[in-house]
Amino acid sequence: MARRVLIVGTGLIGASIGLALKAGGFDGEVLAWDANAAELAKAVEIGAIDRALTEREVLTPDVADVYVLATPVLPILDWMKKLAAVAGEGKLVTDVGSTKQEIARMAVELYNQPGRARFLPGHPMAGKESGGAALAEAGLFRGATWLFTPVDANEGAIEAEWRTLVEGFGARVKDLDAERHDEVCAWVSHLPQFLSTALAAMLEDLFATDAEGMAAIQAIGGRALRETTRLGASPYSMWRDIALTNTDNVAATLLALEQRLAHVRENLKTPELREEFRTANRFRARRD
Amino acid sequence: MARRVLIVGTGLIGASIGLALKAGGFDGEVLAWDANAAELAKAVEIGAIDRALTEREVLTPDVADVYVLATPVLPILDWMKKLAAVAGEGKLVTDVGSTKQEIARMAVELYNQPGRARFLPGHPMAGKESGGAALAEAGLFRGATWLFTPVDANEGAIEAEWRTLVEGFGARVKDLDAERHDEVCAWVSHLPQFLSTALAAMLEDLFATDAEGMAAIQAIGGRALRETTRLGASPYSMWRDIALTNTDNVAATLLALEQRLAHVRENLKTPELREEFRTANRFRARRD
Repeated sequence: MARRVLIVGTGLIGASIGLALKAGGFDGEVLAWDANAAELAKAVEIGAIDRALTEREVLTPDVADVYVLATPVLPILDWMKKLAAVAGEGKLVTDVGSTKQEIARMAVELYNQPGRARFLPGHPMAGKESGGAALAEAGLFRGATWLFTPVDANEGAIEAEWRTLVEGFGARVKDLDAERHDEVCAWVSHLPQFLSTALAAMLEDLFATDAEGMAAIQAIGGRALRETTRLGASPYSMWRDIALTNTDNVAATLLALEQRLAHVRENLKTPELREEFRTANRFRARRD
Repeated sequence: MARRVLIVGTGLIGASIGLALKAGGFDGEVLAWDANAAELAKAVEIGAIDRALTEREVLTPDVADVYVLATPVLPILDWMKKLAAVAGEGKLVTDVGSTKQEIARMAVELYNQPGRARFLPGHPMAGKESGGAALAEAGLFRGATWLFTPVDANEGAIEAEWRTLVEGFGARVKDLDAERHDEVCAWVSHLPQFLSTALAAMLEDLFATDAEGMAAIQAIGGRALRETTRLGASPYSMWRDIALTNTDNVAATLLALEQRLAHVRENLKTPELREEFRTANRFRARRD
């Protein structure tokens, strides 16, 4: 049985995992580290973790049974290298990174071998518009899908234990191939983000120096504008690593949307526009 | 004082205007006509109108003091021609159409001349995801912006009276040039719609025959996908006339977004992506 879970990165997701562990009845110790001392202190303050560690303590061999990497993707890849040297057989390293192919590749290379720790890549589909431990909630994962992209068909007891803990958070666990994960996430998560950023940035550039126009946008823009530009508030820091580690998939979705918009533009006065609306109506009818 | 208001088109907006007139204390008679007998009967049933007219009665000279055209834009243009022959001096014809340049051009041509009725183009920024008199509400316009795009600087008492009635609905009245209206609405309303339709239609075409992929989309797609494709549920019937009467503006916004998406796509791995996020962040900060 896992007695100590170590969370690397106590932002919104990491701190919420700490709270969810405690709410779910995990009676071992929750340890944590964060590059930002204030975030780490906040996680202690809200009771998400029992004990803050120094980076040197994190790298003490076998300081924990389960390591949860809850940082952006590039630091996750760095931590995977460092922890491969200190987390030994029977331990589990897992993560919550937004893209999975590069992490899965490194997991195959550095983990799941005799004498080494196991690695189970994960990705909870949960979040908020803003980050930070101050917004953490034990119920953040309730009803959310928690994806795993296993790299080894022969999982051991430690993976099973982590899966059970995650189910205890109220999440619905689902396995997906890492390649498929990154492709689907590009369509349903990354494309909406980059699209929303592009649209908001375009409107800012067009109307920032046109006070009358910006006032008209504010007065006229309703829910349609609010929803399609909402993600424009997302910070670059959260998305840089996704752009860097899922570049080809994201570029493919952007190119496809560019071509689809051109198709609509060329058919504003033709019956093909009716087909486009009907096809879109079918997609929405599946979801409601 | 206007004693009779005639609403042409008793869908969501037309029937809500009837309810808002009564709730706002208008003590004259509310008449109405709709091409769809069921919609007209529903408007009577919910108390939005006092009396349903036949098309012949609508075209009886001076049957009303104020005519409110609450249909899509192409039928509004048709009704403007028919009513110019029967609504005389001292009467007002107004509308709630989504695009204003073609309506304003026809208003200059056929109205606001000696011996003829006045015309004041209008556009309430209110609505729901679905239409129909059954969803009408007296409070639909409360807090919403009601745009007018006047074609004649010398308004008379009848325009003033209609403006006062609209303010009585709880709407914030704002005047805008028709050309500017159609340009701004293309950016903040029409582009989000055609974008959302294109995105939803693209996902439908990509995944409709891929049951596993569609299941993954359903499981993984969260608020980001829901919000950016929500307008994909909008019916073609509502948008056809907008595409036909604001074609150049809509095409320009689509082309601009295509180019902006290409710019993001070409910069997924460059520092320019950070600038794009910062610019988008500034736009959102203006709105919150």
